Amino acid sequence: MRLRNDQEIEIFAPATVANLGPGFDIMGMAIEGAGDRLLIQVRPGDSLSIRNESEVSLPSDIEKNVITPALRAMLQAWGGTLAIEIVILQKIRPGSGIGSSSASSAAAVVGLNELLGRPFGEKELITFAMEGERLVSGGTAHADNAGPAIAGGILLIRGYDPLDYIRIPVPARLCTAVIHPHITVNTLDSRAVMRREIPQRDAVTQWGNVGGLVAGLLTADMGLIGRSLKDVIAEPYRKHFIPGYDPLKAALARTEGVLGSNIAGSGPSVFALCDGPQAAAAAGAIMTRHFGHLGIEADLYVGPVAERGAYVIR
Amino acid sequence: MRLRNDQEIEIFAPATVANLGPGFDIMGMAIEGAGDRLLIQVRPGDSLSIRNESEVSLPSDIEKNVITPALRAMLQAWGGTLAIEIVILQKIRPGSGIGSSSASSAAAVVGLNELLGRPFGEKELITFAMEGERLVSGGTAHADNAGPAIAGGILLIRGYDPLDYIRIPVPARLCTAVIHPHITVNTLDSRAVMRREIPQRDAVTQWGNVGGLVAGLLTADMGLIGRSLKDVIAEPYRKHFIPGYDPLKAALARTEGVLGSNIAGSGPSVFALCDGPQAAAAAGAIMTRHFGHLGIEADLYVGPVAERGAYVIR
Repeated sequence: MRLRNDQEIEIFAPATVANLGPGFDIMGMAIEGAGDRLLIQVRPGDSLSIRNESEVSLPSDIEKNVITPALRAMLQAWGGTLAIEIVILQKIRPGSGIGSSSASSAAAVVGLNELLGRPFGEKELITFAMEGERLVSGGTAHADNAGPAIAGGILLIRGYDPLDYIRIPVPARLCTAVIHPHITVNTLDSRAVMRREIPQRDAVTQWGNVGGLVAGLLTADMGLIGRSLKDVIAEPYRKHFIPGYDPLKAALARTEGVLGSNIAGSGPSVFALCDGPQAAAAAGAIMTRHFGHLGIEADLYVGPVAERGAYVIR
Repeated sequence: MRLRNDQEIEIFAPATVANLGPGFDIMGMAIEGAGDRLLIQVRPGDSLSIRNESEVSLPSDIEKNVITPALRAMLQAWGGTLAIEIVILQKIRPGSGIGSSSASSAAAVVGLNELLGRPFGEKELITFAMEGERLVSGGTAHADNAGPAIAGGILLIRGYDPLDYIRIPVPARLCTAVIHPHITVNTLDSRAVMRREIPQRDAVTQWGNVGGLVAGLLTADMGLIGRSLKDVIAEPYRKHFIPGYDPLKAALARTEGVLGSNIAGSGPSVFALCDGPQAAAAAGAIMTRHFGHLGIEADLYVGPVAERGAYVIR
C-alpha cells in the first residue's frame, strides 16, 4: 500500500471520562469542551516526528508519546511505511484523568485513517489507539477512554478478547460537569492503591450498579442512573488523592438535578452526571468553588455528552 | 387490621432461574411450565398450618418451611394475626436450583396479599418472600429468585439497601430450555466452593458481561445477549457438581439459535437462552439426551420467559 500525494489534515478528539461510575474499566463517556487537536502531514517515506505547539509540556522523546505506538500498530496493520509529521496544536493536560493520552492516540489514528482513505473501521481504530494506553498504564490497555474518544457518546466495553463494545444511547437531557484540579495523580499509583482481590459482596454490588446504569441510560430513567452511580471498587481508595473529596461529593448530592458524581478515570478529575444543563452548571459552580477555596487551580468543562468522537476539522 | 370473612384462594408462582449468566445474585428470570401451587385459607385467629399434598416430600416442621418466615414478616408488617392454613398442591422439587423455595414463599405472600385486599405492593411482597430465602441460604437473602417469582419476566436487582430492582423487557423471540437433573447439590455447599475474594480482572470481566446482557435484552440484540452470557464467578466452580457439564455446554454452544447456557441458580439445573422456540426445543433435546446417557433422571422445561409472576388461579 502506498500514498499517492503529500497530504495534511487537522483533527480533533474529545476528552473522555473512563471508569464511569460503577463501570470500572468498562464504561467511558466523551465530553464536550476539551480535547486534543493535531495537524497530521504524511508523505512517502518512513519516519515519525511529533512537534508540540500546545500550551502543555510533553516529553520530546517520541518513544514516550502515546501517539507513537498507536501509529506503529496502525501502520503495521496497513502494511506500509510513511513519513508522518504531527504537530500537537492543542492538548489536554496530561495526568488529568480525562483521557489525555487517548485523545492524542484517537486523533492520530482517526486522522491518519482519513488520509489513507479509511482502510480501517472504528473498532480497528480503537484497538490501535489502545496501544497508546498500554504505554502509559503499565502494559494493560483499556478501551474506556480510547473507545469514546473515537466513537463518541457513552461506550460499554463488554469484553476484550476480542474487543466488543456497545454504544449506549445517551438520554437527551443528560449533561455533565467535569473539573480538573491541577494536582498530580499518577495512573500507576492510582491503580496501586486499589484492591487486587475484591470481596464477592462488593463485586456483586458493583455489577448490580453496572446493570442499573446501563438500564437507566437505555431507558432514559434519570432516577435509576442516579441510584446506579455508585462505585465500591475504585472511589473508596482513590478519593484520598483528591482534597476534600467527601464534602464535595456530598455538596453535589444535595444539588437538585445532580444525579451523582465520581472520580473521572484514575483522577484527579471529578465528574457529575446531571439532569439538564442547569443542574450541570450548578454542579460546575460547586466544583469550582470547592477547589477555589482550597487554593487549587482547576479547569471546568460543562455540557452535554459529546455525541461525536474524533472528527476532521479541515 | 382484621379479616372480615373466612376466605380461600388458590395461587401459582413460577419457577425461576437466578444467577442469570453473569448476573450472579442480581439477575433472575421466571420460566414457564414449572412452579408451586398453593391453596391458602384464612380465618380470624393466630395460627399457621402447612399441609403438603404435592408429590415431593417436605419437612413437616413448619419452622423448616420457607413459607413460615415469609408469612410472619408479612403479618408483622400488616400488624395483625390470622389463622392460616396452607395446602401445598404442587411443588417444584427442592434443591433443583430453579427457585423451589422462592416459588413457595412468593405464592404464599401474593396469595395472602390478595386475601387481605392487597395492602402491600410488589416490592414489599418481594421483601417478605426474601425472608424465606434467608432460611435456606444461611442468613443472606437474595431477590433474584423471589423477585421474578413475584414480578415475572427478567429482573435486575440493582441493590439491596433498600431493595431496588428493574424489570428488563424480554425480547419476544427469547425462549429458554431448563433441565433439572435429579442429583443433589446443597445451596450452602454450592456457595462454599466459590471464591470469597475475586481477582479484580475477573470482576471487571463479569460486570462487562452484566452490562452487555442488560443492553442486549433492552435492545433485543440476540448476538449481544449470547456474547454476554459468560460467567467467570460461579460457573467455573460449580460446574463440577454437574456430570458432564463441559461437553453439555459445548454441545449447546454448537446448536443454531442457542445463545448460551449456564447453571441455573446454584444448580444442578442448567438453562439455555435461545433465539426462538425451535432453538429452545433443540437445546432441550440435547439436555435430555445428555442426562439420559448418564442414567440421570431429569425434568425439562422449554418455553418463553414467563411474563407473569405469581397469580391467582381461583
